Amino acid sequence: MRNQRSFASDNNAGVHPDILGAIQSANDGHVVAYGDDSYTAAAVAKFREHFGEEVDVYFVFGGTGANVLGLKSLTSPYHAVVCAETAHINVDECGAPENYAGCKLLTLPAPDGKINAGQIEPLLHAVGIEHHAQPKVISVSQSTEMGTVYGPREIKELTDFAHRHGLLLHMDGARLANAAAHLGVSLRDITSEAGVDVLSFGGTKNGMMYGEAVVFFDGSLSRDFKFIRKQGMQLSSKMRFIAAQFTALLSDDLWRRNAAHANRMAMLLADAVSEIPRIRLTQKVESNAVFATLPREFVPVIQREYFFYVWNETASEVRWMTSFDTTEDDIRSFVELLKKVAGSGV
Amino acid sequence: MRNQRSFASDNNAGVHPDILGAIQSANDGHVVAYGDDSYTAAAVAKFREHFGEEVDVYFVFGGTGANVLGLKSLTSPYHAVVCAETAHINVDECGAPENYAGCKLLTLPAPDGKINAGQIEPLLHAVGIEHHAQPKVISVSQSTEMGTVYGPREIKELTDFAHRHGLLLHMDGARLANAAAHLGVSLRDITSEAGVDVLSFGGTKNGMMYGEAVVFFDGSLSRDFKFIRKQGMQLSSKMRFIAAQFTALLSDDLWRRNAAHANRMAMLLADAVSEIPRIRLTQKVESNAVFATLPREFVPVIQREYFFYVWNETASEVRWMTSFDTTEDDIRSFVELLKKVAGSGV
Amino acid sequence: MRNQRSFASDNNAGVHPDILGAIQSANDGHVVAYGDDSYTAAAVAKFREHFGEEVDVYFVFGGTGANVLGLKSLTSPYHAVVCAETAHINVDECGAPENYAGCKLLTLPAPDGKINAGQIEPLLHAVGIEHHAQPKVISVSQSTEMGTVYGPREIKELTDFAHRHGLLLHMDGARLANAAAHLGVSLRDITSEAGVDVLSFGGTKNGMMYGEAVVFFDGSLSRDFKFIRKQGMQLSSKMRFIAAQFTALLSDDLWRRNAAHANRMAMLLADAVSEIPRIRLTQKVESNAVFATLPREFVPVIQREYFFYVWNETASEVRWMTSFDTTEDDIRSFVELLKKVAGSGV
Amino acid sequence: MRNQRSFASDNNAGVHPDILGAIQSANDGHVVAYGDDSYTAAAVAKFREHFGEEVDVYFVFGGTGANVLGLKSLTSPYHAVVCAETAHINVDECGAPENYAGCKLLTLPAPDGKINAGQIEPLLHAVGIEHHAQPKVISVSQSTEMGTVYGPREIKELTDFAHRHGLLLHMDGARLANAAAHLGVSLRDITSEAGVDVLSFGGTKNGMMYGEAVVFFDGSLSRDFKFIRKQGMQLSSKMRFIAAQFTALLSDDLWRRNAAHANRMAMLLADAVSEIPRIRLTQKVESNAVFATLPREFVPVIQREYFFYVWNETASEVRWMTSFDTTEDDIRSFVELLKKVAGSGV
Repeated sequence: MRNQRSFASDNNAGVHPDILGAIQSANDGHVVAYGDDSYTAAAVAKFREHFGEEVDVYFVFGGTGANVLGLKSLTSPYHAVVCAETAHINVDECGAPENYAGCKLLTLPAPDGKINAGQIEPLLHAVGIEHHAQPKVISVSQSTEMGTVYGPREIKELTDFAHRHGLLLHMDGARLANAAAHLGVSLRDITSEAGVDVLSFGGTKNGMMYGEAVVFFDGSLSRDFKFIRKQGMQLSSKMRFIAAQFTALLSDDLWRRNAAHANRMAMLLADAVSEIPRIRLTQKVESNAVFATLPREFVPVIQREYFFYVWNETASEVRWMTSFDTTEDDIRSFVELLKKVAGSGV
Repeated sequence: MRNQRSFASDNNAGVHPDILGAIQSANDGHVVAYGDDSYTAAAVAKFREHFGEEVDVYFVFGGTGANVLGLKSLTSPYHAVVCAETAHINVDECGAPENYAGCKLLTLPAPDGKINAGQIEPLLHAVGIEHHAQPKVISVSQSTEMGTVYGPREIKELTDFAHRHGLLLHMDGARLANAAAHLGVSLRDITSEAGVDVLSFGGTKNGMMYGEAVVFFDGSLSRDFKFIRKQGMQLSSKMRFIAAQFTALLSDDLWRRNAAHANRMAMLLADAVSEIPRIRLTQKVESNAVFATLPREFVPVIQREYFFYVWNETASEVRWMTSFDTTEDDIRSFVELLKKVAGSGV
Repeated sequence: MRNQRSFASDNNAGVHPDILGAIQSANDGHVVAYGDDSYTAAAVAKFREHFGEEVDVYFVFGGTGANVLGLKSLTSPYHAVVCAETAHINVDECGAPENYAGCKLLTLPAPDGKINAGQIEPLLHAVGIEHHAQPKVISVSQSTEMGTVYGPREIKELTDFAHRHGLLLHMDGARLANAAAHLGVSLRDITSEAGVDVLSFGGTKNGMMYGEAVVFFDGSLSRDFKFIRKQGMQLSSKMRFIAAQFTALLSDDLWRRNAAHANRMAMLLADAVSEIPRIRLTQKVESNAVFATLPREFVPVIQREYFFYVWNETASEVRWMTSFDTTEDDIRSFVELLKKVAGSGV
Repeated sequence: MRNQRSFASDNNAGVHPDILGAIQSANDGHVVAYGDDSYTAAAVAKFREHFGEEVDVYFVFGGTGANVLGLKSLTSPYHAVVCAETAHINVDECGAPENYAGCKLLTLPAPDGKINAGQIEPLLHAVGIEHHAQPKVISVSQSTEMGTVYGPREIKELTDFAHRHGLLLHMDGARLANAAAHLGVSLRDITSEAGVDVLSFGGTKNGMMYGEAVVFFDGSLSRDFKFIRKQGMQLSSKMRFIAAQFTALLSDDLWRRNAAHANRMAMLLADAVSEIPRIRLTQKVESNAVFATLPREFVPVIQREYFFYVWNETASEVRWMTSFDTTEDDIRSFVELLKKVAGSGV
């Protein structure tokens, strides 16, 4: 039988007990709906602690909602959003950004999931010419979809470039915690301090049940976001339950502990895998993802016991994700299977 | 100090303990994300028990999402959706239906929140003429935003009319449970049996934390809904937690017990209010809402202690909602205050 | 056989000879496409002569395009546009404003096609509340779809109200020329001088072949309009041919002569009709439209010889339009037929 | 002074005299607006002569409108349109396809402007997975934006591939006439006979003033197109003037004569250019475009006398277009200038 535990995605995990506890505590009597309550105020205060006093924070239901509405708040439909070919907004949101922000995505090759200013510069030839969508936002994922991480200086270079050219920088931080844990920096160091304009801050992949946050580092950008959120079908009526989760996540370093643990498990897996013949790591392991190529015929054999995704059919490249609740035992069992398959002459 | 307990809305209440319990039980290890898990399968089975074996069910995050995506699945942008002026989709969704389905709403006067075929017929003159948005869907709320309820026959008349003219019937059932409880019928009696095509079935206002369902009574209408849901930013990754809530809500008649209780509390309030001088009920009380006009100067005095909404500024009409956790004590205290204000010569 | 000449609409007429002549003259060699040519510059200069030196002008293909893109330039999708129930944008554009601007229309009863500030005021209760689309634009038609005309003071009252409340005033001037001719004022008097923010200025209904103009009276509103126009599929490549038409229309008072003639013909028709038993005028005749009720059984008999539209099936109300090329003979023949039908005991 | 004649684009030319003549002839009295007239019927009949009796034809204002509305009629917003990176819909429509059809474009590298089934196949891995936009349409340009032409067999391979996989084939035929002229085939041979589903047939670049046609080869696809066209702001009221132009273009082989002439002029230019040192042709010349790289410093010198576009700044690649009215003298003078610049030691 297939193992319950999986390396398919960090959202196959459940909810961290402290976060579930916070939900239970918030379930106490009546509060005003739609965020005008003390739980939401407390959560916003927590965000300001971590990201800076001046941030504006809006909670939404999910990650696609956070990304799309964040982008919509920065753009008009004749704008373009520049991103990596591998970006979640390009690959995994069923066209929601184009559909709802109405914008064009201009994608750049990004073998390791990262983009840089040099790649973006040629796109600026379009500026001012009405036949072309107008570049307005650079969107980066931190950590990236390939498990890599931008250093603070790399981000700063992008935001400087953006601001020099009248563009804005959007960060998809569905796994921002993993990046900060890897770099050993604060959340602020790689967002506000690095010049980011708008951030999707993810909770669900790091131990929450549901709920993401759109964080604005410049108040002028969020002026009408409450309308965008409501019209964008992302306003939760019983908001306190998202808020309480975030307060727990951002307290006592839970966000970092969860992320660091997941990262560590990925590194453990990567280290073990790198010694297995015929399996080859394809990306640096800087967060909670391990990418590897392996003989095509291994895949179904391994998948009989563990569910995971083939990332690139053509290259027979797979992705294994760890999560806050992955155990060393999970890794050990999985590695044993890998070794067995690799040694079995499949 | 303002009372914690309020009559502002049924979503100022928290989560029913049985539903919170179900969430906790579902927090057990890993399951595949996005709904391919046994919790979701169980919830879908529960829906089929209540609504018929042939229904297709999709869970989404919230009520606006349920309505808008349901409507989008039934329409092309050149279509029009016919609804009451008072409909939530017309008044309380910040233009999301027009914005996201791209359709026009054609609204009908509805003093009690209900519409009928006679009102819709003249709109059919537009059919086939390219200058006019093409009527395609009739959307009704059950129970209505005015607290009234369509009888099964009234719904049948609307669905018959719709189908005779090539239209579809959409039901906003954010408070469907209250309607079924009031009528003493099954959920099926006023949906599938009455010819409804697509239903938003609400959980949040009836004791859930978050999550609504889009229920299709005709499989051909839902064929591509999974793409609409994902692109519409309403696909929850940790789907099991919405599913588990619905399973609890639809088990052991919890949905009906919660709704019937709220209805009963509304009736209690209405009965008491009807005897207070200068406060006049304006709608039949058939679910968990009480509408009343009262002297304009009463409002701020009462609002000092209880938060609620003025429904119609011009008429000084207010709305008081009860919920699954409203107590007889809540009603008593509130009525006492009303009496005091009414007697005080404010 | 049905008469070639009709009273169905002013766009059943052809092109005024002077305008056709201007097109021919513009067909001379190569010019840069998309409006960067001397014909376009000359037409813009003509607009500035008539509307004020500060106006920004953009030519588009048609009237729906002019209205929808003008509105889009003034709004975000969470905004609402307030207009008369009878407005072309509400009734005759197949939902294009909602679909493309993404906004909600808030409609007001307008028996004579006109709206006023008193009606709009209650809608402002929605301002700031995220559940409601936010009123942002008031759109009026001049002359109205009912053939009536706002006086300069009526417009000023609306624009003052709008600006006092942070709203903008959009004018659908598909038949602005007819209004100016009726009032005996300049185009400026009822637009820039009256505080209008954005105008759709119509050419097609007043003797042009195709082409409308979006006129901005405040440069800050048009900043990105060239992108909106291109993305909105309204950028003509061989722009000079729209421009040349407008230059001709705005020269030697052609716009006023055409409109005044059409108005005069409508008045002639109205005068004659008012003496025919059982036919009753239902609107003041202030432009080139005549509205009348008549016995239902007259309609098919008259339509055998003249094509026109029944405006309101229920009331048996019809609309007869005159155009720049309607002749006194046309009126005479038509009136004779009406008399014959009215006297025939049909 | 800059030469009036240019090689910037085929839409810098004016209107062919026969087409202008047809417009004048159509300016005769009243006809019903919006296409219910004999001129439109005649034009549709002409299309059926050329494309097959079963085609449905709708006239629109411009090329972007034709492409975007054609694509919209084939897709739902969760679909993707596969096209060449160089496609007009990807590069030159300011994001209109994404914005208005709501779809994602999936672009393929296409050094010569052409794509093939082998490139598309890997994109089909996305089919059925809700996280990814669903490939539904393959869009090709004929002739391509790089001046190359698909042979009938190349098109057939694409349409066969498309239909085998449940996709549809859209053709941007803004310059279809040039392709047919180059291949020496009928319009039908490379559209209906080759399995194309929907075609944008261009008139403006081939001697018309304005107006394009959306041609459906399968009636089931056009069922609601009249609503899409109206809502898409592309319904011309005085339709007869677009229709009359198309009738003229499709009569007496005018479409082919114009296109063949432009093609011949391009070939003349290419032949001459190929002998000029330091200027290098970069594409096969199969229609009316000549692409060439030349020393960067040549560009401003040539542009002092002739307006044209630099196609690729990085490569210093330029595009020169010929049109129906380009003369051998035009070519000679331009080539002389090129030679002078090339020999001048700039």
